Amino acid sequence: MAGTDRRKAKAQASEFAATDGPVIILVRPQLGENIGTAARAMLNCGLIDMRIVAPRDGWPNVKALNAASGADAVIGGAKLYDSVPEAVAELDLVYATTARGREMIKPVLTPRAAAETLRRTPAAKAGILFGPERSGLNNEDVSIADAIIEVPLNPAFSSLNLAQAVLILSYEWRTAGGGEASSSNLSTSESTSDIPAANKSEIISFFNMIEGELEKRDFYPSAAMQPKMVRNMRNMFQRIQLSQQDVQSLFGIFKALTRRPPDPGDK
Amino acid sequence: MAGTDRRKAKAQASEFAATDGPVIILVRPQLGENIGTAARAMLNCGLIDMRIVAPRDGWPNVKALNAASGADAVIGGAKLYDSVPEAVAELDLVYATTARGREMIKPVLTPRAAAETLRRTPAAKAGILFGPERSGLNNEDVSIADAIIEVPLNPAFSSLNLAQAVLILSYEWRTAGGGEASSSNLSTSESTSDIPAANKSEIISFFNMIEGELEKRDFYPSAAMQPKMVRNMRNMFQRIQLSQQDVQSLFGIFKALTRRPPDPGDK
Repeated sequence: MAGTDRRKAKAQASEFAATDGPVIILVRPQLGENIGTAARAMLNCGLIDMRIVAPRDGWPNVKALNAASGADAVIGGAKLYDSVPEAVAELDLVYATTARGREMIKPVLTPRAAAETLRRTPAAKAGILFGPERSGLNNEDVSIADAIIEVPLNPAFSSLNLAQAVLILSYEWRTAGGGEASSSNLSTSESTSDIPAANKSEIISFFNMIEGELEKRDFYPSAAMQPKMVRNMRNMFQRIQLSQQDVQSLFGIFKALTRRPPDPGDK
Repeated sequence: MAGTDRRKAKAQASEFAATDGPVIILVRPQLGENIGTAARAMLNCGLIDMRIVAPRDGWPNVKALNAASGADAVIGGAKLYDSVPEAVAELDLVYATTARGREMIKPVLTPRAAAETLRRTPAAKAGILFGPERSGLNNEDVSIADAIIEVPLNPAFSSLNLAQAVLILSYEWRTAGGGEASSSNLSTSESTSDIPAANKSEIISFFNMIEGELEKRDFYPSAAMQPKMVRNMRNMFQRIQLSQQDVQSLFGIFKALTRRPPDPGDK
């Protein structure tokens, strides 16, 4: 509310905000007002880490600060990135919010199920991607994510305002905290929870390595088909939920395969 | 989103909206924009019955219509009242949303608990009161309610925008509805169920191919380590739950990688 004491909010933001909460990542947001109201929604729910990828109107943005209604600590601490891969580089777990169904094969979670997964794996540094107001995330953005979050809304009118989408995810994260608010059980791979997950920069370097080696070998039938083939390949490997050990193994395997076999005569 | 087809939304609003959903009652709202964004949030969650008590800037309000982003059926159907008692006159159950604790002795519910109560008593005509932006509901307004709803937010920053408060209550009502919308997660297996899984013989030929190529390249440090390395690799790839299409893609990728890159001089 406009009457909130901004200094008080700033001073208390870190005290009441969660250090283990997910990072909220706004991808190519258009309106400063929406960045501000998203920041307010985050702080309402105790989240303070915002990242912004290529905002249309530049950064800092005075409209964002005004619309934040006192959530200055979120706006002031927001980090700016040029691309989604840079914004997620050191994260362990990335969700993509989408309104529309995607043809990509990825786990699809409700906000509640996603929040419960985050609460069960507090050591994993997580991020949630939100797309631009008009178009949402594109397929390339989504391909980097481990899973998709779909908010179960009225199918005839499902398009949420950006800050509203941020609020629902933040609110579910907050209410998943105490046992009283949540009620469900769900299945995720419990067995892998002890194994350190690879972070996104490790996975992205692995992708870059394969994609580069394939390009050298004229793997892609045409330049036009390359993005789709790369996306499919990334989606397929992300389904493994790669651990650090997996990524090291895969690096080893692929490096070995790209070597020429020794000539039998050498032995 | 701005791209929503307004006529379509209007035509489909009643079809997808709930006749047993609660009435959303905005008490002395100040800004038309907030009335509009509240309407959008309602329709997102399948609610269409809005009542407005003594709006500061009169009614109808063109800013409300513009901010509704297509939720015209909600704005167009909103009913106007002079006072809270008139607005709730024929309702069976009334909740009051508040940010601050009240000295009044009334049951205090979370949004989730309130939504579950509403779903359990579909025959009861219910309404939820939301106060003005700056001050919230006054004690007289609250005294009319059967119970208070408090949204569990960051105590250092708990003041929600009006439309955000409407969204949380509407969203909880919606997700309390059917099994599909609530906390159950759709797992990968659901989303991939239409895609034929690779059968074991296809997967095994793929493994044999990789393992053979790796052996040719002296990948295994020793014969003793080979079985364990092969097992780990197989386990890792099986976690993908490979489809036929995946196996074909992987064959293509690995075949390409084992080729020598063309000599740059050849081109």
